[in-house]
Amino acid sequence: MALVLYGAVGLFIGMATAFGPVPRITWEHREIHLVHFQEPKTFNYSTLLLSEDKDILYVGAREVIFALNSLNISDKQQEVFWKVTEDKKTKCAEKGKSKQTECLNYVRVLQQLNDTFLYVCGTNAFQPVCDYLNLLSFEFGGKNEDGKGRCPFDPAQSYTSVMVDGELYTGTSYNFLGSEPIIFRNSQQSPLRTEYAIPWLNEPNFIFADVIRADPDNADEDDDKIYFFFTEVSVEYEFLGKLMIPRIARVCKRDQGGLRTLQKKWTSYLKARMLCSAPDKNLIFNIVNDVFILKSPSLRESVIYGVFSPQLNNVGLSAVCAYNISTVEDVFAKGKYMQSATVEQSHTKWVRYNGEIPRPRPGACMNKEARTDGYLSTLNLPDKTLQFVKDHPLMDDSVTPIGDRPKLVKRDVKYTQIVVDRVRALNGTVYDVMFISTDRGALHKAISYENGMHIIEEIQLFPNFEPVQTLLLSSKQGKQFLYAGSNAGVVQSPLAFCDKYSTCVDCVLARDPYCAWDAQESVCVDNFREHETERDWIQNIGGDASSCTDKVKEHSLQHTFKHGSTAELKCSQKSNLAQVVWKFKDDVLKVESPKYRLLEKALLIFNLSEGDSGVYQCLSEEKVKNQKFSQVLAKHVLELKKIQHTTVSPAQP
Amino acid sequence: MALVLYGAVGLFIGMATAFGPVPRITWEHREIHLVHFQEPKTFNYSTLLLSEDKDILYVGAREVIFALNSLNISDKQQEVFWKVTEDKKTKCAEKGKSKQTECLNYVRVLQQLNDTFLYVCGTNAFQPVCDYLNLLSFEFGGKNEDGKGRCPFDPAQSYTSVMVDGELYTGTSYNFLGSEPIIFRNSQQSPLRTEYAIPWLNEPNFIFADVIRADPDNADEDDDKIYFFFTEVSVEYEFLGKLMIPRIARVCKRDQGGLRTLQKKWTSYLKARMLCSAPDKNLIFNIVNDVFILKSPSLRESVIYGVFSPQLNNVGLSAVCAYNISTVEDVFAKGKYMQSATVEQSHTKWVRYNGEIPRPRPGACMNKEARTDGYLSTLNLPDKTLQFVKDHPLMDDSVTPIGDRPKLVKRDVKYTQIVVDRVRALNGTVYDVMFISTDRGALHKAISYENGMHIIEEIQLFPNFEPVQTLLLSSKQGKQFLYAGSNAGVVQSPLAFCDKYSTCVDCVLARDPYCAWDAQESVCVDNFREHETERDWIQNIGGDASSCTDKVKEHSLQHTFKHGSTAELKCSQKSNLAQVVWKFKDDVLKVESPKYRLLEKALLIFNLSEGDSGVYQCLSEEKVKNQKFSQVLAKHVLELKKIQHTTVSPAQP
Repeated sequence: MALVLYGAVGLFIGMATAFGPVPRITWEHREIHLVHFQEPKTFNYSTLLLSEDKDILYVGAREVIFALNSLNISDKQQEVFWKVTEDKKTKCAEKGKSKQTECLNYVRVLQQLNDTFLYVCGTNAFQPVCDYLNLLSFEFGGKNEDGKGRCPFDPAQSYTSVMVDGELYTGTSYNFLGSEPIIFRNSQQSPLRTEYAIPWLNEPNFIFADVIRADPDNADEDDDKIYFFFTEVSVEYEFLGKLMIPRIARVCKRDQGGLRTLQKKWTSYLKARMLCSAPDKNLIFNIVNDVFILKSPSLRESVIYGVFSPQLNNVGLSAVCAYNISTVEDVFAKGKYMQSATVEQSHTKWVRYNGEIPRPRPGACMNKEARTDGYLSTLNLPDKTLQFVKDHPLMDDSVTPIGDRPKLVKRDVKYTQIVVDRVRALNGTVYDVMFISTDRGALHKAISYENGMHIIEEIQLFPNFEPVQTLLLSSKQGKQFLYAGSNAGVVQSPLAFCDKYSTCVDCVLARDPYCAWDAQESVCVDNFREHETERDWIQNIGGDASSCTDKVKEHSLQHTFKHGSTAELKCSQKSNLAQVVWKFKDDVLKVESPKYRLLEKALLIFNLSEGDSGVYQCLSEEKVKNQKFSQVLAKHVLELKKIQHTTVSPAQP
Repeated sequence: MALVLYGAVGLFIGMATAFGPVPRITWEHREIHLVHFQEPKTFNYSTLLLSEDKDILYVGAREVIFALNSLNISDKQQEVFWKVTEDKKTKCAEKGKSKQTECLNYVRVLQQLNDTFLYVCGTNAFQPVCDYLNLLSFEFGGKNEDGKGRCPFDPAQSYTSVMVDGELYTGTSYNFLGSEPIIFRNSQQSPLRTEYAIPWLNEPNFIFADVIRADPDNADEDDDKIYFFFTEVSVEYEFLGKLMIPRIARVCKRDQGGLRTLQKKWTSYLKARMLCSAPDKNLIFNIVNDVFILKSPSLRESVIYGVFSPQLNNVGLSAVCAYNISTVEDVFAKGKYMQSATVEQSHTKWVRYNGEIPRPRPGACMNKEARTDGYLSTLNLPDKTLQFVKDHPLMDDSVTPIGDRPKLVKRDVKYTQIVVDRVRALNGTVYDVMFISTDRGALHKAISYENGMHIIEEIQLFPNFEPVQTLLLSSKQGKQFLYAGSNAGVVQSPLAFCDKYSTCVDCVLARDPYCAWDAQESVCVDNFREHETERDWIQNIGGDASSCTDKVKEHSLQHTFKHGSTAELKCSQKSNLAQVVWKFKDDVLKVESPKYRLLEKALLIFNLSEGDSGVYQCLSEEKVKNQKFSQVLAKHVLELKKIQHTTVSPAQP
């Protein structure tokens, strides 16, 4: 009686087709050598800090801080326990928290203060505390400062922090219940915080913070900016239930608050939506799980990478979106603001503000222009500007991703963390290599190539599929590693597994900017670890392996068989993008025939007879764009053992 | 640096785990006998009408109408072509439409007018036309009435219709462009239509319409109501892009429009949201694909079944929600209305109307109360009531599903159509058996049991995975069939495949209310087709097969083998919920050992030696709740053929 909804059907078909690229190689945990660190009875290795000068990885876990050799993290160099007193633990349990889990001290802040001290904070049985860790003695200063506003009370609560010029900027919650969110600068001279008001922060989940330095050559004399990333409950949209929105917020380093209005509050706090969606496919990623800012002196501008998932109908979808920092700055510096309007007494609706905007521009950093206008500090700012920013912290314009769509959309995976390495391939082209972790202990390494994504490999970092909670990348030339923290331990992984590729075709088809084929030595080398000057290496990130001159495999396995028996010919193929093809006497074998059965790593041939004698070749065929590259993986020679004729075999397909 | 978003992670884990029940049995197209009807060069068999008295299934396809024997649809009894004239086709093509496809006549309305006539409409090359089909001569009356408002212009456009007491009610579009949606009563005395205004209909996709008769014994003297189901663009919610909302709308049969306000328009048109969501999992199904109203004289009240899919982030999710008609009536009869409010000049927001509601209640049917108040017809209604309903057709309250959540949520499937049969199991319990079709030509047959769903079987109706466009259920006792239409043909299926179950355990584990085990005859019978009075039958919809006394399988297959060879022991298992277990000499075989390899339908044993001689049993183990039922599926006896000792076999795992 009813017609199928045409639009929706079309939509569905579009989506059901292959969602996101398949990782070319899947490395099981046992296949690769990764260095692990974990201590008995120690959990929650969630805070990592790298000292590249000293080759030390600091790890903040539950009730303990470690210093590990960053070149081999199984080599523990120091440790210091940081336990909750029995008294505090009891008090915490009296408030209804779990004595075994929540009422312990979870290290949440681990920041380098100077050469000698780390600034560290822990949840300390719901009484957050901060201290100074002397790196020489590896002992605490014993200051036990109140950690309120710097560290969450509850270890399950979201937080983020960044140290800028000796001052700690945090996004956390300010009370026991976790109901008062705050973006805070812990400063002797000028501690500043956000207003406690829904338009400023509405149940945020803080996930990342970082500083972007102003260009010192800029005539603007612009300020350094601290960016915060979080997901919060939307005020501007309305749907069934609470709708989440990913946000980017920023404050300026020179902010000193207002004199009367916004006294000891940020005058430069502005926030905007981060868009990560594919409208043509109705895909909306409105939860940001992690952010990484790729900063590099060689970069024209910094790039923000974020991993997202959808809040609605999420049955396993993740996306990566990337944003230019200039897009973000334009939204804050030139965009429209939103304002709230009251509808019929009870409802509030946020709409674009089209009225006059006071000068100086509300929320702007103190730059040359402001100083020229006579505003030397935010304390001088006129009340009109301050009142405006207090009421209008939300921008109407959204921060749109590069290319206006996700770089990567992947099905059946939940991405948790991201770090990005910018590398120069042999031909000089620069690639952003994304390392993205999952909630099942895996890592995807991906590059963007000609508008598409290529997932070079999937690495099982943790054997027990534990969610990856932290990722950290070192940048030391020739000694680069990736560190990942989970509830159960820390793992150290090289950035590439070039030596796993045994042929030139395999090495080139990997399309890994870290790997190249050394034709002289016949090995796939990590071109950032080798220090050769003469380079006769083959690499092609497009996957064109036609310059490879691998020798045809000559070695073959001999088998003799009896009439009527079954043969099992082994052949294993690592690439998930390749197809296995069997040839018999140079013709392609019809493996669909009941005579054969193709298993994952072998071919079975039933009811063998004289006609089955001969050479069997197992080939891997991999298509890259319109080129097909074949390699012989295995060669088997079958020969009939001449004995007396036998009865009917039991093994008939 | 960043904390994993705890809430979102928990959410995801909850979702990744088993989504929706797995169909217990999957019947491939070749495994079952279904009757097909299709004619060469004829497509779009989308309109079905059943005459149960005459055992005839009328099929409206492209340019032709068939009368088929409904007991065997391959038996075509009549056909009449209904082609577009060349002239019209040319004119249609001149307007930019495709001459080969769009400019043909698609039969869209096929309604029983009386014993002698069908009322039929077709798109007729974008000039919709209606006619009367004489069932005796199977010829058209040749009236060629203008079909505007009864049938869409465009065959790709949505439409629905229902015939009520000789008057046709339609939901369709009213113009060539398809931009003017309309809900229309085609009536000599009182043709009525909807206002052409966004609050009334906002880009609707009509999917179903049906009448619910008033209870003749009701003291209210309530009117018969015609319900329309569609998905339209939301006015009340706001998100990125257009947000769709599933709606139920209703009009009253006695409506005659207003005298001045709403002249020739519905005065009883009201609509409401249909909720189908699982808020705890953030699942929101906001596109309704099909609806079926289960009406039965024995029912206390009618039940509305709908199949839904999400608009946002839909990578293959479907749901079934059910609604009590009393819930719907309460929303329209007692619920709050919505009103639009203007915000800051440019924006409109729909909010709850909290003001005074005029009397008689706007949109109410003419019942005893209205007549007592002196309103004998809608023509008498006061202007205040009419103006209110004109401005407030949308209810603030939503129609919530039975149990406040979907009956079924299924992943990796797109449900297109639904019909429901209410059956009484042997023990007297009543079950609603849902037949739900997919866009890949399959049918799921499911029942609700103790708050969970059990999908009894999945049937491949169409061999080529064509989307099912129409489903129809006959209700003739003992001759019940399900009919499905697609673009390429019509298929007739029995409602159950009881005779496919060969043992009592299998028959009972099916948990199919149509099937029972006849212990005397040792067959699984369709208990609605058999007409026995004495019933010594076993059935248990909970799946408790413990009253079964199947004999242990005694028959076994003998194999002789040679030393070193490979054996293949066959065993196939239909139930997707069962596990296959192999036993050797009554001990469970460790099939993970390299000695064995478990294939889908066989066990391979490599490198046979004397110790492998003996009895191998293949068992199917199926768990239902906490009970486990085992059945021997196959028995193999392996025996060493004593011949001379041989060389090493090539087949070693």
